[in-house]
Amino acid sequence: MSELRLNLITREWVVIATERAKRPEDFKTPVSRKAVPPYLETCPFCPGNEAKTPGELIRIGGENGWKVRVVPNKFSAVSISGTKERKNDGIRRTVSGVGVHEVIVETPLHNMNPALLSLEQIENIVKIYKNRFLEAYLDPRVEHVIIFKNHGEGAGTSLEHPHSQLIGTPITPIQFRDRLEAAAHFFDDTGECLMCMLAKKEREEGVRIVIETEHFLTFVPYAALSPFHTWIFPKRHSASYGDIADAEIKDLALSLKGILSKLYHGLANPDYNFVIRSNKPKDCDMEYFHWYVSIIPRVSKAAGFELGSGMYVNTGLPEESAEFLRKAK
Amino acid sequence: MSELRLNLITREWVVIATERAKRPEDFKTPVSRKAVPPYLETCPFCPGNEAKTPGELIRIGGENGWKVRVVPNKFSAVSISGTKERKNDGIRRTVSGVGVHEVIVETPLHNMNPALLSLEQIENIVKIYKNRFLEAYLDPRVEHVIIFKNHGEGAGTSLEHPHSQLIGTPITPIQFRDRLEAAAHFFDDTGECLMCMLAKKEREEGVRIVIETEHFLTFVPYAALSPFHTWIFPKRHSASYGDIADAEIKDLALSLKGILSKLYHGLANPDYNFVIRSNKPKDCDMEYFHWYVSIIPRVSKAAGFELGSGMYVNTGLPEESAEFLRKAK
Repeated sequence: MSELRLNLITREWVVIATERAKRPEDFKTPVSRKAVPPYLETCPFCPGNEAKTPGELIRIGGENGWKVRVVPNKFSAVSISGTKERKNDGIRRTVSGVGVHEVIVETPLHNMNPALLSLEQIENIVKIYKNRFLEAYLDPRVEHVIIFKNHGEGAGTSLEHPHSQLIGTPITPIQFRDRLEAAAHFFDDTGECLMCMLAKKEREEGVRIVIETEHFLTFVPYAALSPFHTWIFPKRHSASYGDIADAEIKDLALSLKGILSKLYHGLANPDYNFVIRSNKPKDCDMEYFHWYVSIIPRVSKAAGFELGSGMYVNTGLPEESAEFLRKAK
Repeated sequence: MSELRLNLITREWVVIATERAKRPEDFKTPVSRKAVPPYLETCPFCPGNEAKTPGELIRIGGENGWKVRVVPNKFSAVSISGTKERKNDGIRRTVSGVGVHEVIVETPLHNMNPALLSLEQIENIVKIYKNRFLEAYLDPRVEHVIIFKNHGEGAGTSLEHPHSQLIGTPITPIQFRDRLEAAAHFFDDTGECLMCMLAKKEREEGVRIVIETEHFLTFVPYAALSPFHTWIFPKRHSASYGDIADAEIKDLALSLKGILSKLYHGLANPDYNFVIRSNKPKDCDMEYFHWYVSIIPRVSKAAGFELGSGMYVNTGLPEESAEFLRKAK
């Protein structure tokens, strides 16, 4: 019989569908990818084509120009110019689409797979994330910042050159507000941070742990919403990614490289998304929230049931997914 | 500049991305579909293969056997047998995966497109939905029922024979609970049902209306989460689909056929999901909730930003989407 598990952090119920369950290796369905050259003349992110992007915001220099480069998104979801205006008209709530939308170009090589980047390069990227995260919050119009990556067409990317994105929105997403509220209730009830308690519990049980480093715990959550859904939790309590220390940056890079390699080798380079879920820098001392990274390989498809209920059906057992990833290269 | 709109019913912010916006016809990207025969020997839903499904639950008879047929899902997410057991262990919340999971076979014809079904046949389906909906809630283990359809591979279907599904879960999805709560607050604040007020407002403004019939209003919501996202609202206030009257069944079939035809002809048979969002039959008199149908053509992809924020980026303007659908056949 299947089992429903509640993810207390995201407040989502997940049907762990044992009767439909596949073995972890059955999710290894190589995505057909066209052969990609290391350089593409038409790619705005390839070295030599820098003029094709709007003005560079920051770079980490390298022998041949740069290693990581951040530029405004040319087709931005929100606009860097303009004032924030709110209209509350009857039951209509509208805010002008101002904010920050940046692209973090992760490597000069057009055909590089992020999982194969050097540890040093991933460290550069993670460091740049912190810089841009803090910078975005300096914009008084920005209420919330999301850093995310779409890898592969199935994960919604349109440009193949490896990149991640940052969006600073002029409002706080209601989903984030709801989760903060649930975390606050938990703290009021128990005097503890739900995320800290969850990480402690995962560590004790061990069965869903994928990687443990000095500062981070990488695991498949108890109520993982899909096969190989993975979280990277900092061991030190902190509500904001803006607060990440240098030693933690190194260690996060190690954890991220670890899990991306395992996905790449274990599941034959699947499409995936990852996102950093974090509170504002100024709220980094908040007792009841804890930042983390969520990685979602796109090996299954949300359909009508998920859209209609906010629940998920997971056909991979979290414990088996974790075991498979632990053993993967 | 883009604009952020809050969907007060779903509590989701949507970036209406005017700068990235496409014209409605640009979303018409025909999905490659393999040629499908009207009958397939291996298909459990084709006439003559009835023995391949678990015991039939109900049928609407026709000249050659049946017109609509309901069977238990062979690969059910939740199990029809077994008792409901709750485990609350520390921060773990688990419920045994019991409940109802049925398949509504919409036509004997394997290769029929639901948009091309006769009005009478869609009426049969909508009528059967009511029967199964009411029946599922008679199971004391069931807390919430979702009726949904996945059309096409991109919408998560694995079987091509036209069918929809019903799942009765042993818990109330937290998303549903949150929306109920928001609706209750709105009612307390204003003395009105948010959904009734919204439908009234849409009718007054008219620009997002796609179809209006005697009992239903079909429109693209102000804060549509994706291009051509459409809602069908009953005009009569009722919190539960279980309460739908016979005249309304006829009229819902008309609205559903209307919107499915428009999607089929206007967007060249896109993948889509639809879902009936409803409260329990016994709560049909609830003043502050209103059942409705939500239809989501899968013409765009949710990516890291959506997963990481619960927000959406819509590159179709709701007003233009509606105009396009109004004009489509």
